Amino acid sequence: MEKKHLLTAMKMGIDTHQEPVVYMRSDCHICRAEGLVASSRVAVESDGQVIIATLNVVAKHVMPHHHIGFSDVAFQRLGVANGDQVQVKHVPLVPSLSALRKKIYGHELNDRDIRSIISDIRAHHYSDIEIASFLTACAGQRLSSIEIIALTRAMVDCGKRLTWPGHERVFDKHCVGGLPGNRTTPLVVAIVSAAGLVIPKTSSRAITSPAGTADTMETLTTVDLKLTQLQTVVEQTGACLAWGGAVSLSPVDEVLIRVERALDLDGEGQLIASVLSKKIAAGSTHVLIDIPVGETAKVRNQEDAYRLAELFPLVGLALGLNVRCVITDGSHPIGLGIGPAEEAREILAILKGDVGPTSELRTRALQLSAELLDFAFGEGLDAALAQATQLLDSGAAWAQFERILQAQGPVKIPPTAKHQQVQYARRSGRVLRIDNRRLARLAKLAGAPNEASAGLRFHVSVGDWVEEGAPLFTLLTQSLGERDYALAYYRENLDMFVITDGL
Amino acid sequence: MEKKHLLTAMKMGIDTHQEPVVYMRSDCHICRAEGLVASSRVAVESDGQVIIATLNVVAKHVMPHHHIGFSDVAFQRLGVANGDQVQVKHVPLVPSLSALRKKIYGHELNDRDIRSIISDIRAHHYSDIEIASFLTACAGQRLSSIEIIALTRAMVDCGKRLTWPGHERVFDKHCVGGLPGNRTTPLVVAIVSAAGLVIPKTSSRAITSPAGTADTMETLTTVDLKLTQLQTVVEQTGACLAWGGAVSLSPVDEVLIRVERALDLDGEGQLIASVLSKKIAAGSTHVLIDIPVGETAKVRNQEDAYRLAELFPLVGLALGLNVRCVITDGSHPIGLGIGPAEEAREILAILKGDVGPTSELRTRALQLSAELLDFAFGEGLDAALAQATQLLDSGAAWAQFERILQAQGPVKIPPTAKHQQVQYARRSGRVLRIDNRRLARLAKLAGAPNEASAGLRFHVSVGDWVEEGAPLFTLLTQSLGERDYALAYYRENLDMFVITDGL
Repeated sequence: MEKKHLLTAMKMGIDTHQEPVVYMRSDCHICRAEGLVASSRVAVESDGQVIIATLNVVAKHVMPHHHIGFSDVAFQRLGVANGDQVQVKHVPLVPSLSALRKKIYGHELNDRDIRSIISDIRAHHYSDIEIASFLTACAGQRLSSIEIIALTRAMVDCGKRLTWPGHERVFDKHCVGGLPGNRTTPLVVAIVSAAGLVIPKTSSRAITSPAGTADTMETLTTVDLKLTQLQTVVEQTGACLAWGGAVSLSPVDEVLIRVERALDLDGEGQLIASVLSKKIAAGSTHVLIDIPVGETAKVRNQEDAYRLAELFPLVGLALGLNVRCVITDGSHPIGLGIGPAEEAREILAILKGDVGPTSELRTRALQLSAELLDFAFGEGLDAALAQATQLLDSGAAWAQFERILQAQGPVKIPPTAKHQQVQYARRSGRVLRIDNRRLARLAKLAGAPNEASAGLRFHVSVGDWVEEGAPLFTLLTQSLGERDYALAYYRENLDMFVITDGL
Repeated sequence: MEKKHLLTAMKMGIDTHQEPVVYMRSDCHICRAEGLVASSRVAVESDGQVIIATLNVVAKHVMPHHHIGFSDVAFQRLGVANGDQVQVKHVPLVPSLSALRKKIYGHELNDRDIRSIISDIRAHHYSDIEIASFLTACAGQRLSSIEIIALTRAMVDCGKRLTWPGHERVFDKHCVGGLPGNRTTPLVVAIVSAAGLVIPKTSSRAITSPAGTADTMETLTTVDLKLTQLQTVVEQTGACLAWGGAVSLSPVDEVLIRVERALDLDGEGQLIASVLSKKIAAGSTHVLIDIPVGETAKVRNQEDAYRLAELFPLVGLALGLNVRCVITDGSHPIGLGIGPAEEAREILAILKGDVGPTSELRTRALQLSAELLDFAFGEGLDAALAQATQLLDSGAAWAQFERILQAQGPVKIPPTAKHQQVQYARRSGRVLRIDNRRLARLAKLAGAPNEASAGLRFHVSVGDWVEEGAPLFTLLTQSLGERDYALAYYRENLDMFVITDGL
C-alpha cells in the first residue's frame, strides 16, 4: 500500500462546519482505482499529517484534473496550502469501532474500550453518524457508574489541564441547564468571590438554549480569553466569568456536544462526564451542581434528580473532586429576562440593588451562594445565607463584579432590541404555569442567542394575578423576519402561558 | 411565515450521495436574516415540493449573488431546473423525533410512534445522524416483537405492493447474509420453479459483501427490470431473478440500509423488518429463511439463530405471511468462487452437471430446495430432497434457468478477470478454518462487486488436505492497483486460512 496517489490541494471555499469534506472529480484516476464513490470515507495525508474526510464527487467543470478540493475545516485540519501535494488512501480501520459496537449491543465497556473510543473521537476519526451512534448507545441511563468514571477520566486526559498555583481550593458551580432565564452564575461568582473563594468560572455558549452564561457575559465584557489572560484575571480578582472554549478543556466534549445538539439528546452519563471532565480539567477542587427539576426542565422528575445527585459526587470522588449537589425548583423561569442582553440587564439590576427581595433570581442566587460558602467554610446554611445576603446588600458583590468585568476587557453596555412587541393577557386570572421548553423555542425564534439583544422580557411571574389586557411579556427582536416567525409560533402556542381562575 | 425568500437555483455538479446539500453564500441576506450557518438544516421549496437539506456556506467566488447551489441528489429530489426560483425556510418541526427520543431513552414504541418515524424517514425528513440514532436505539435486541411487527407493517405500507393475480401461493427465499460465496438463490429458484412453484425472486445488490445475488445475476442477464417486465417474466416462467431496487418495494429500507452499512450495524429487529417488509411488499405468501451460523457469519451463535428462527415466523404470522426458517452451517465459504462473475460460473457448472455431489454449494442448494418443496407440498423432507435432486440431475432445472435468463434479457457470458494471481499454500496440512470476514474484505479490495470479474477462486475447501506449494486460491483483479492492495492485505492476513497438522 506504499503506492503514492498524489493530488494537488485546493481550497473550495465551502464551509461544511465541523465535518471535513474533500472533493474529487468522478474521472480522477484515484477514485477509479480505489473504487471511491460519493460519501466514501477517505484518509488524506500531507507531510505526515492525516485527516479522515467524507468524499464528494464533482463534475469536471468544478475543478481541474489531478486536483483535490477541501472544505474549510478539512483544509484547516490538514494544515495544507493551495498547491500542496497530498496523498489519498483508504481509511485505516478505526480500532475502537468494535468497542462502540460492543456498547450498541448492550455490553459494558471497560476502561480501555472507552479510552480508545474517546481517543479516536479526539483524533477526528469518527464520522458524525458514528458519533451519533455512540451518543445514542450511551443515552438514557445506559452507562454504569464505572463507565461514567472511565468516560470522564478519558475526556479529561485528552485535553489541557489547568492548575492554580498558590490556591489549595478552587471552587466552581454548574447548573444542569434546560431552564431559560436561570442566569444565577454571574451573581453567585460575584458574591462568593467577594467572600474570598477562588472561582475561575468558565462557561459554555448556548447549546440548545436561548443563551449560555458566556453569551450573557459577552454583552458586558470580553469573554473570549486566552489561558494566560484568564490566569491574570483570576490572579487579580480571585474569579473570572469567561468562555471555556478558548482554552481547550475536554476538547472531545465540543465534538460530542455538536452532535448532541443536532440530535437534541442528553444522556445521563454523557452529561456527568461532560460537566465533571471540564471541571477537573479546569483545576477545580470543589464543585456545586445545581439541578433544577421541573416538568419542562432538562431534569423532569425528582427520581432522575436524585440519581444525578447521587452519581455526580460518586464520579467526582473517584476522580478526586469534591462535588455537592442541590436540587432546585425548575418548574418555571426564574429570571424576568430571556436572551443574552436581557439577562445581563437583570443581573446588573440585582447587583446594584435596583431589584429587591421579590426577585426570584436574587433569592436563588443567594441560596446557591450560601451552599458554596457552607461547602467552603462549614458554618451552616443559615449563617452562610446571612453572609451572602450581606455581601450583596452592602454592594461588595457589585464592586467585585465590576472588578471582574474590567479585568476581562473593556466593559460593554448590553444592546437593546430594535423591535419590542408587548403581548397582552387574553383573560384575567392567575399565572399557573409557563412552559420552559416552548418559551426557549420562542426566544430562539426571536433570534437569541446569535442576536444578543433578542429574547423576551416578562411582566408577570408564575403565581401572579394578571388582568385581561395587561402586559404579559415583551418580544425582543432585531429583524422583522425573526419577529414574524416568533409571533407566528407564539400565536400557535398561546397555552405556553396557563392562566386560570381562582387561586 | 409567509414572507418569500426567493433564490435562483443552480446545480453545483457535486455528488453528495444520498444526503442532500444546498450551498448559500455567507453574505446571502437569507442566511443572515434567518441565522443560518453551515450544517443548519433548511427546507427548500419549489412549486409545492419541499426537501430538507443540509446547508453548506460558500465563499463569494463560488457562486453569484441571490443564488442557491444544489448537490445532485438535492437537485433531483426537488425536481428543479437551473434558473428556477426557490424558497428557503426554517425546517418544520419533525414530529416523530419525540418518538425517536422515547426509544433512545429505552421506552417501548407504539404503532403510531413507529408509523410516524417511518413516514418521516420516507419523506427524507431525517438527517443521517438522526437515522444513525434510530438504528442504534433499535440495535441488538432492543425492539420487542410487537415493535418489530409494527416496524415491518409501517415499512410495507410506505412503498409499492405487488400482487400476482392467478397465483394463490407465491414463494420466496432469503438468506440472512454475511457469508461470501453462499450463492444458493439462483439454484434454488431454478429447481423449485422447475417443480412448479411460483417464485418471483428479487434480490439486492451487495451491501457489505463482495457480491449480492443481483450482482451475480447481472453477469448472466438483465436484472434491472421494471415492474411490468418483471410481471411478464414471472408469467412466462413462474419465476424471476431480478434486482429489487427498480420496483421500490419498502423504499425506507434503502435509506436505512445505507446508514446501517456505514455503521456496519445489523439490529435483530431491523433485520427482520427489512427482510419481511420486502417479502410482503413483493406479494409473497410463503418464505423460507436461511440462517447460516458461524463465528464469522452475520449470525455468530446458535442462541441468536434460535431467536431469529422464532421471531421471523412470529412476525410473519402477525402480518399474514408463512415463514419457515432453516439454520445452516455458516462456518466457512460454501462455494468455490467469490465475486459476481466467479459465482455465476460456479452456478452454471452445477446446473449443467459439470460439478458433482462433492460440491458443497450443490448440496446446500438441494437442501434449501427440499425445504421449500416440503413447505409447498408437505411430502416430507426426504421425498422433497429426492425430487429436488432429480430436477437438477435431469437438466430440468438448467432448462428452467435458461428460460428465466432469456425472459429477463439477452443472455450474457460472465467476464473474466484480467489479472489472475495464484496463491500457494505455505505449508502442508489440513485446511481447518477460513475466515469469512477477512475473505470478504480481500474480495472487496480486489474490486468486487463494482468490478464483476474481480474476486477469488478457491482451489481448496475447509477439511481438504493441502500440500505445501499447492494452489490455495486465485486472486482475480481487473486493475493493478486493486491487485496490489488486495495482495498487501492478504500478506498481512495469511492466517485467514488456518492450515494444521493431523486430522
